[in-house]
Amino acid sequence: MKVVSKKSLAALITAALVTTPTIASAANLQTDDFVGISFWLISMSMVAATAFFFIETQRVSAKWKTSLTVSGLVTLVAAVHYFYMRDVWISTGETPTVYRYIDWLITVPLLMIEFYIILRAVGAASAGIFWRLLIGSVVMLVGGYAGEAGYLDVWPAFIIGMAGWAFILYEIFLGEAGKMSAEQASASVKSAFSTMRLIVIIGWAIYPLGYFYGYLATSDPGAAANALNVIYNLADLLNKVAFGVIIWNVAVTESEASS
Amino acid sequence: MKVVSKKSLAALITAALVTTPTIASAANLQTDDFVGISFWLISMSMVAATAFFFIETQRVSAKWKTSLTVSGLVTLVAAVHYFYMRDVWISTGETPTVYRYIDWLITVPLLMIEFYIILRAVGAASAGIFWRLLIGSVVMLVGGYAGEAGYLDVWPAFIIGMAGWAFILYEIFLGEAGKMSAEQASASVKSAFSTMRLIVIIGWAIYPLGYFYGYLATSDPGAAANALNVIYNLADLLNKVAFGVIIWNVAVTESEASS
Amino acid sequence: MKVVSKKSLAALITAALVTTPTIASAANLQTDDFVGISFWLISMSMVAATAFFFIETQRVSAKWKTSLTVSGLVTLVAAVHYFYMRDVWISTGETPTVYRYIDWLITVPLLMIEFYIILRAVGAASAGIFWRLLIGSVVMLVGGYAGEAGYLDVWPAFIIGMAGWAFILYEIFLGEAGKMSAEQASASVKSAFSTMRLIVIIGWAIYPLGYFYGYLATSDPGAAANALNVIYNLADLLNKVAFGVIIWNVAVTESEASS
Amino acid sequence: MKVVSKKSLAALITAALVTTPTIASAANLQTDDFVGISFWLISMSMVAATAFFFIETQRVSAKWKTSLTVSGLVTLVAAVHYFYMRDVWISTGETPTVYRYIDWLITVPLLMIEFYIILRAVGAASAGIFWRLLIGSVVMLVGGYAGEAGYLDVWPAFIIGMAGWAFILYEIFLGEAGKMSAEQASASVKSAFSTMRLIVIIGWAIYPLGYFYGYLATSDPGAAANALNVIYNLADLLNKVAFGVIIWNVAVTESEASS
Amino acid sequence: MKVVSKKSLAALITAALVTTPTIASAANLQTDDFVGISFWLISMSMVAATAFFFIETQRVSAKWKTSLTVSGLVTLVAAVHYFYMRDVWISTGETPTVYRYIDWLITVPLLMIEFYIILRAVGAASAGIFWRLLIGSVVMLVGGYAGEAGYLDVWPAFIIGMAGWAFILYEIFLGEAGKMSAEQASASVKSAFSTMRLIVIIGWAIYPLGYFYGYLATSDPGAAANALNVIYNLADLLNKVAFGVIIWNVAVTESEASS
Repeated sequence: MKVVSKKSLAALITAALVTTPTIASAANLQTDDFVGISFWLISMSMVAATAFFFIETQRVSAKWKTSLTVSGLVTLVAAVHYFYMRDVWISTGETPTVYRYIDWLITVPLLMIEFYIILRAVGAASAGIFWRLLIGSVVMLVGGYAGEAGYLDVWPAFIIGMAGWAFILYEIFLGEAGKMSAEQASASVKSAFSTMRLIVIIGWAIYPLGYFYGYLATSDPGAAANALNVIYNLADLLNKVAFGVIIWNVAVTESEASS
Repeated sequence: MKVVSKKSLAALITAALVTTPTIASAANLQTDDFVGISFWLISMSMVAATAFFFIETQRVSAKWKTSLTVSGLVTLVAAVHYFYMRDVWISTGETPTVYRYIDWLITVPLLMIEFYIILRAVGAASAGIFWRLLIGSVVMLVGGYAGEAGYLDVWPAFIIGMAGWAFILYEIFLGEAGKMSAEQASASVKSAFSTMRLIVIIGWAIYPLGYFYGYLATSDPGAAANALNVIYNLADLLNKVAFGVIIWNVAVTESEASS
Repeated sequence: MKVVSKKSLAALITAALVTTPTIASAANLQTDDFVGISFWLISMSMVAATAFFFIETQRVSAKWKTSLTVSGLVTLVAAVHYFYMRDVWISTGETPTVYRYIDWLITVPLLMIEFYIILRAVGAASAGIFWRLLIGSVVMLVGGYAGEAGYLDVWPAFIIGMAGWAFILYEIFLGEAGKMSAEQASASVKSAFSTMRLIVIIGWAIYPLGYFYGYLATSDPGAAANALNVIYNLADLLNKVAFGVIIWNVAVTESEASS
Repeated sequence: MKVVSKKSLAALITAALVTTPTIASAANLQTDDFVGISFWLISMSMVAATAFFFIETQRVSAKWKTSLTVSGLVTLVAAVHYFYMRDVWISTGETPTVYRYIDWLITVPLLMIEFYIILRAVGAASAGIFWRLLIGSVVMLVGGYAGEAGYLDVWPAFIIGMAGWAFILYEIFLGEAGKMSAEQASASVKSAFSTMRLIVIIGWAIYPLGYFYGYLATSDPGAAANALNVIYNLADLLNKVAFGVIIWNVAVTESEASS
Repeated sequence: MKVVSKKSLAALITAALVTTPTIASAANLQTDDFVGISFWLISMSMVAATAFFFIETQRVSAKWKTSLTVSGLVTLVAAVHYFYMRDVWISTGETPTVYRYIDWLITVPLLMIEFYIILRAVGAASAGIFWRLLIGSVVMLVGGYAGEAGYLDVWPAFIIGMAGWAFILYEIFLGEAGKMSAEQASASVKSAFSTMRLIVIIGWAIYPLGYFYGYLATSDPGAAANALNVIYNLADLLNKVAFGVIIWNVAVTESEASS
């Protein structure tokens, strides 16, 4: 009895000496856990993107620095939450819904602010543009959260979320923001605005797809969780990193043109 | 047997000497703990705001850099304390009063310094303005702490706190600071000063509201703690981040005008 | 009673899964664990290289800042993964395959982007160059991972990986990228491009060597793991740090020439 | 017995999962532990001051950057040690003497270097000034440590420490440093030098006061520890942060004058 | 028995709540452990020196930025390893030989690179200088490690190490590097080069002294470990921080002269 306990003591102390938080989750990531691998890949990509956008603010003219800074804030906030989400996934295998929505509640409005900052850089954007984009994104997120956290049935929640998204699309394609861009922007800004719009229509379409596969398409909870998380992760990579790279590209182009 | 237990105790304490964070509180945030979600949201918003203000110092002229740096210090100090407060709330469900006041004892004087820096940037602000604003804010905080930590009954403490706030309002509306702004500032500085004043009168009014709902309005301790913390959190978001954004806006406008 | 003790052992080990770092792995690195020492050396070299590239962006002209930033991203991502890999190796003695491939999936495309950025700095590089280099590197990595994680037999996987690499070599020596460099680049850019190519042909050849010694040459798993990891570590040091230093050198030379 | 063990197991794992370093000391800070609150306040103030001094180096001319950098080093080193001291105090209630002296052994010479850097900025300061200030500060600290750590009786140690301080005061008021400042400095430098001297005479006088109350005035060890730590904490705040702000002020004034 | 278990539970949870990694080692540093205090002092000095060198790169001209960056890399790498070494010493009382050599394998070549960068800044330094200095330093370190880790007897290992050092001294005093400095450098560069050489001859002589006291002079292992570590620590402080300050001094002087 004592021998066992002593050994276990020794084992314990040894174990305590050799483990770190990182190992903790590190040892848990299996070579075939592709959802976990996607969390890991995206958490590091967000870190790298943040460093990239922040350092590149050195390279652009004052007016465009703010656009790049905001791109970096989006990936910074996402990076932190991806570390939390990755750890929740790897240690419990559960979908980290609450962290996703906390992330989105900060980053989606920041993405909307990017449209506004770009429009302001080329003319007198009205505050109304910002408020309409903000309201649209909050409606979209509240709908989604109500469905995923179980406050509403998945179908009505899905419809509310889609309505918010539709409102954003209306504003940037046909509303005041769309008109301003069409009339006042330079060629490179117009092209960036146009690609950013495509991301909001195509890239954001991946989220309802994830929601659909996660809650509406299958009754196997494991497969649903896998589908949901891989799809959401890839969508975040596109909508945050690629979106930022487009802004970086126009910022560099315009800065060089004006210098 | 006792010997073994004691040893395993020692081993456990040793093991416990070293336990890790992330998962920890992560696993504890429930999807319906909206107070916890508000702590989480605001802690990350403070981090993002700090990065924003510090990076944007690159963009403004020397005189305005200090204003932006101080805005970033306010959100930096708040960010650190929100991480502590968030963890206290999520792991114990208790109101983290002592950390709130430590935060405020650093950030409220820094907000007062912002008024002084802006006035100094447009003319010869007397040191008296700074000292009066400082004394007002300390009286306000000491009153509040005495009430919340139980050193005074809630009503007398409430009155002391309100008196400190009234003194600040007098100074920035009718006192020397108010006069200086009215007479010497440029249009954009005057407009910023005016919005900052509105925040101090309207945004700060949210704190006594929280105090009222937390200590004076209800006898249900759970509901009171929820109300108190959500209200305080939203007030901090407005009074720190929005306040800083106003200063950022005037700093950018004035820097572009003078270049 | 023993059962209880065993359970408490398990519990303790679980608890210990989350014990702190420094001492931890520190106490475990043996003076004769040269694989562990190589992990340690390279993790710190990556940190130092990252600091170097990021700080030196101050020194070069705008066009070259991006090249240096990307070099720093490569070593940053590698640094983080080397810390994880080091801890896995030192605490378990196992080859951290999954972390290596997560690292490579981010850093190898970034290295390919470096070729593209340099070509774009000297003329109108087509997007096709980037996509071909990207596809080549993904094929190479997918082949390698399939072999190392056991999804394919080692020989076929080896051949797929080699095909991806051959495709990259074709592009940078004989394809469009090779031609552009030969025709349009200045002497110092041409020389850097040429050394970078040599690194991709000679430095990258070390990886199949590691794969060969790790999976094809020996049946002693301990010796194979040692060989594999030491070879991969040295290859990473050369292909990431030395590659970056070459880019730093051309960036400094070209910046001084143009100022 | 088993039940208890199993419960304790569960409790253990729960405890291990919910604790973080932060909660840790966080949960321990009582609302009436004003010494602990002062440690906490000052640790965060040091962090904020460090950020302030480092970011403001952007704003001043090259010659004055070094003065600001050194001010930031003082608060950086103090910040790190205050975090350690805070944790020692809150978890054990003991006076963290050894960390205080490690801090002072780095920061006090750095403060002396500030005098030297300012004198060098206005004329040819001899190396003798630096060495005399350094020797004075080391004598002062060695005396203090010998008394507080029990290597000497408190009275003789007190006298040695006071002698070191007297030597510093002689140098900056009546010695070569004092003369240089009186003869060669501009008005704003002279005023800063003069305030820095006042801090060394008045602000530093708080330390022997703390020593006196902590070791010579009372026989109640609890009250003595409280007095000692609160007094030392306030002295550090004044002598590090306020000292740095004075240097920041002269750096900004002189930079604007020369531009 | 139950009482004990319950108490132990309570004790455990309390312990878990009050402990942090930092306390862990913090609580372990005794007021009379002067070796531990020297580890602590130097770890923080390295951090401060790193911040200093990196921030001061702002102040010097492009050519000298690289020299300062490399000085900062040396202290950065040393800082990280000193934190590990400090923790090993304080928690086990053992000499952290393997971490010292990992540190030196990165920092000593970087110090040699400093000679090369300075010579390149004043003329066409041949690559041979760099390779000879690198080979000398590797021979020196391999000899030392073989002796300290027990791969060779202490005397032969000592002689190999000394031979490497002698080769470096030959190169910088009488070889190509020495000649280049004598012929082509400006007065301030020549003076810095000369002081750096003195550090390599006098400051580095402290290491064989430590080796001698640690392995050859005494048979008391405790005293030997104390002597070895204190001597190595002081040598590192001189050879890394003071070496860097000399480079900073010449960088500032030359930058001001050329502007």
